[in-house]
Amino acid sequence: MPKKILFIMCDQLRFDYLGCTGHPSIKTPNIDALAARGVRFDKTYVQSPICGPSRMSFYTGRYVHSHGSSWNGYPLRVGEMTLGDHLRPLGVRTVLCGKTHMIADLAGMARMGIDPTSETGALLAEGGFEVWDRNDGVVPDGARKQPSHYNRYLNDHGYEGPNPWHHAANSGKSDAGEVLSGWLLKHASEPAAVAEEDSETPYTTTRAIEFMEQARDESWCLHLSYIKPHWPYIVPAPYHDMYSADDIIPVKRSDMERDDPHPLMAGYYGYRYSQAFSREDVRRAVIPAYMGLITQIDDQIGRLMTYLSDSGQLDDTLIVFTSDHGDYLGDHWMGEKELFHDQSARIPLIIVDPSASADATRGTVVTDLTEAIDLVPTFVEYFGGTVPDHILEGRSLLPAVRGDATSPRAYVISEYDYSTRPFLRHLSPNAKSCLLTMVFDGRWKMIWVEGHRPMLYDLETDPDEFVDLGTDQAYAAEITRLSAAMFAWARRQHNRVTLSDDKIDNDMCHDDAVEGVYLGFWDATELDAWKADNKPATE
Amino acid sequence: MPKKILFIMCDQLRFDYLGCTGHPSIKTPNIDALAARGVRFDKTYVQSPICGPSRMSFYTGRYVHSHGSSWNGYPLRVGEMTLGDHLRPLGVRTVLCGKTHMIADLAGMARMGIDPTSETGALLAEGGFEVWDRNDGVVPDGARKQPSHYNRYLNDHGYEGPNPWHHAANSGKSDAGEVLSGWLLKHASEPAAVAEEDSETPYTTTRAIEFMEQARDESWCLHLSYIKPHWPYIVPAPYHDMYSADDIIPVKRSDMERDDPHPLMAGYYGYRYSQAFSREDVRRAVIPAYMGLITQIDDQIGRLMTYLSDSGQLDDTLIVFTSDHGDYLGDHWMGEKELFHDQSARIPLIIVDPSASADATRGTVVTDLTEAIDLVPTFVEYFGGTVPDHILEGRSLLPAVRGDATSPRAYVISEYDYSTRPFLRHLSPNAKSCLLTMVFDGRWKMIWVEGHRPMLYDLETDPDEFVDLGTDQAYAAEITRLSAAMFAWARRQHNRVTLSDDKIDNDMCHDDAVEGVYLGFWDATELDAWKADNKPATE
Repeated sequence: MPKKILFIMCDQLRFDYLGCTGHPSIKTPNIDALAARGVRFDKTYVQSPICGPSRMSFYTGRYVHSHGSSWNGYPLRVGEMTLGDHLRPLGVRTVLCGKTHMIADLAGMARMGIDPTSETGALLAEGGFEVWDRNDGVVPDGARKQPSHYNRYLNDHGYEGPNPWHHAANSGKSDAGEVLSGWLLKHASEPAAVAEEDSETPYTTTRAIEFMEQARDESWCLHLSYIKPHWPYIVPAPYHDMYSADDIIPVKRSDMERDDPHPLMAGYYGYRYSQAFSREDVRRAVIPAYMGLITQIDDQIGRLMTYLSDSGQLDDTLIVFTSDHGDYLGDHWMGEKELFHDQSARIPLIIVDPSASADATRGTVVTDLTEAIDLVPTFVEYFGGTVPDHILEGRSLLPAVRGDATSPRAYVISEYDYSTRPFLRHLSPNAKSCLLTMVFDGRWKMIWVEGHRPMLYDLETDPDEFVDLGTDQAYAAEITRLSAAMFAWARRQHNRVTLSDDKIDNDMCHDDAVEGVYLGFWDATELDAWKADNKPATE
Repeated sequence: MPKKILFIMCDQLRFDYLGCTGHPSIKTPNIDALAARGVRFDKTYVQSPICGPSRMSFYTGRYVHSHGSSWNGYPLRVGEMTLGDHLRPLGVRTVLCGKTHMIADLAGMARMGIDPTSETGALLAEGGFEVWDRNDGVVPDGARKQPSHYNRYLNDHGYEGPNPWHHAANSGKSDAGEVLSGWLLKHASEPAAVAEEDSETPYTTTRAIEFMEQARDESWCLHLSYIKPHWPYIVPAPYHDMYSADDIIPVKRSDMERDDPHPLMAGYYGYRYSQAFSREDVRRAVIPAYMGLITQIDDQIGRLMTYLSDSGQLDDTLIVFTSDHGDYLGDHWMGEKELFHDQSARIPLIIVDPSASADATRGTVVTDLTEAIDLVPTFVEYFGGTVPDHILEGRSLLPAVRGDATSPRAYVISEYDYSTRPFLRHLSPNAKSCLLTMVFDGRWKMIWVEGHRPMLYDLETDPDEFVDLGTDQAYAAEITRLSAAMFAWARRQHNRVTLSDDKIDNDMCHDDAVEGVYLGFWDATELDAWKADNKPATE
């Protein structure tokens, strides 16, 4: 049986909403079973705490600073190599089922004469994925339309109208038949007006199994990318009332946070969704639905594992379970994501390697710092390729999974570009400088805010990240140290992507005279002496 | 008559080897006349003091850190926009006659299904230029072959053999008929074994005039790119003995420089060509030939101006005269280029704008700091385009040429990647870290040497750059200040190239709810209140 990777991603799943990561009440037995069979990377951070740029880093193996797609809808420049570009030469189909948030660089493609409908063009336009089924999430009525297989599926299954994805799968229904939009938070506790098996998560799983079934004899990397538990926060029965407000963990926030906050935080506190999630009635309505969406995913993971086992593929398939970012859910007086507290920037990551060489690590937890960009090199190595480390900026996790010695990284980097956020734009003179950068060394977390003072948290003495030490002179040395780390990171070569280190070392680093470029010789005597000591390649 | 740009570049022409830049004995009346008719930018620095990366910055308008082609032969990633990509949409043919040092990213093109022989593919492979005639410089016998129109021209004009470019145009001939290779420095004073009108500089000029003549009625930007006065240092009669050793300016070097030097400098001092150019017999043989090559270029500039004037194009053609880097010629105990002393990193730059709006500045000298990357935005603006400042990292010089107020830049950046230099590789653990970065603010010049201490020169008290202050604690504050500037530069968004600031500000920076993404609303009452105050685009 050929080697395979099932690369499962959830959207907006917090690191701490799983049984295996310590949530006291949520039921995720199938995901916990993955952790028991594999290795859980406990300190994993995304490269940007929002869908688009985070995913572009997952798919390119490069920092946002490098790939440049710094916010949702900012097209990924054509030619930026993606997972598929790295795996296809290894004979691996790289296939999408679900969400990517990829926006094609159509202007770049046109400039280079690439037809987006050609085979190559379609891959470039889809972030290198062969699209089995793409669903980036529900589009509300009246907003930008995108074609959707899922809407057609719903129509075929008796849900009528132009957009049942919205009015059935992501809305409740009143006794009078009125649509109770899942976009409104008060409706989070309603059951979605869809049969459970027709809702997004089972639909996507079904489609994934269809792919795996017809590709049983091939080598593939399937990106199964669930659009949940991302909002709209609404879930069908029986998950809608599986959890009650009594099951939710207490909010993590402190009045200290709102006492003379950094202007960046003040901007976020003032925004509508932060204010909404600061309300207890919102949390009590939304979080049980969020938990139900997660348990629904967990059940589908169980279904996937049964399929892989029954079809004899389990022993040849590397399984990855992760998320693209978290969700504040009212913690730190915020909703949504976008900043760098653990609730937003830290994600679950589990890798189950079927190889015998990984037997010794099963059920263990790695606490070394890990980044989303580590997955592409992991996948390349799993399929036997050479990791092109002049392009990929992460490092393979296979050694850790197989119990080999690794040197932990000193810090993780995460970035955020707030140029589209009207409630923050007073902080920057222009779109270029709307840059936030997190540098976290496992204890100290610095947030560099371009044009403003940095923020600083000490997660050892303040694990909840309530106390911003950025103005405290007692900690100036930490900021200096983390800034130096950020400077070192920023000045790296991020763009010398056409030539490997090996090629430079072996083919290009030599005396010019080796190629007959005779620099610095006065006369034939000097040149002949050099030739006697060296063997010019070209004579 | 349509607007035109004649973009003239010399190769390895030092800033101070022109009459108008203060050389006491060289004859460059035609270039001096350009300076008298236009504006001379006195403090212009290249983005890298070596051909390939310097030119890739000239052609892309971006720092080496951004375009990634950091040494000769490191392919420019396909899709990196070049001058032609910016000018063609403005209706301007962008044409090459001479050298570019462009190496195509053939692997990237193959990955994207781009045929290098297609019309688009040929442009991408040639750095965006329509090739009228490309000659990257003489290839010695036995080295990599490249097709050459010039060799064919020489064959057609009676110079026989497979490579008369080498044995005739770049070699002398003894009385016994023996080839005296111009690659050997002792032959620099020989006349090249070629008729003057058949040598490289007149040939390239002739070809350029052929282009201009057949494109008189079109709008174009012609990159006339001379491969001289770059080595081999040999020139035909009458230029070979136009200058004698008495005409050369004294060597600029100090014993202080070799007293406990920075390890980077020690590496350079030890290399063969530095040692060669530290010899007075080498300087006395080579520099008169170098000067003759420059005066030969000057005569060809005169020929070009006569052609433009006679053909009625002079009043519609912006003329730029510059170079891709300098030449140590023994100064600082070095030959060649590669480091950041003014002899290497500073270049001449003259812009003659035919517009009446530039009349007030004719003959003036701008002393503000200028970078090579300023030319692409200058050209875009000259042809009436909008400068895409999310891609281009320089700034248009047209305001300065037209006497408008400008805010000078605070510092210039130049970079060098020494990964191919065997005599320096002991300084770096790998190819990735062979990075040097100059930050120069007009007085203080810092050279950041990755993994080693920085070097520092004060050009006010030490205009010859003899005294490295990098170890002197009295100047630590200057290094801190310039490092902070470099950090600010390094953390800029260099890669968000697919989306303009205007597009972000006007189309993307708004409340999510404008697009029907109703985040943070509890119920219809809250949503309706928001709608009453706002006008959703999609309702």
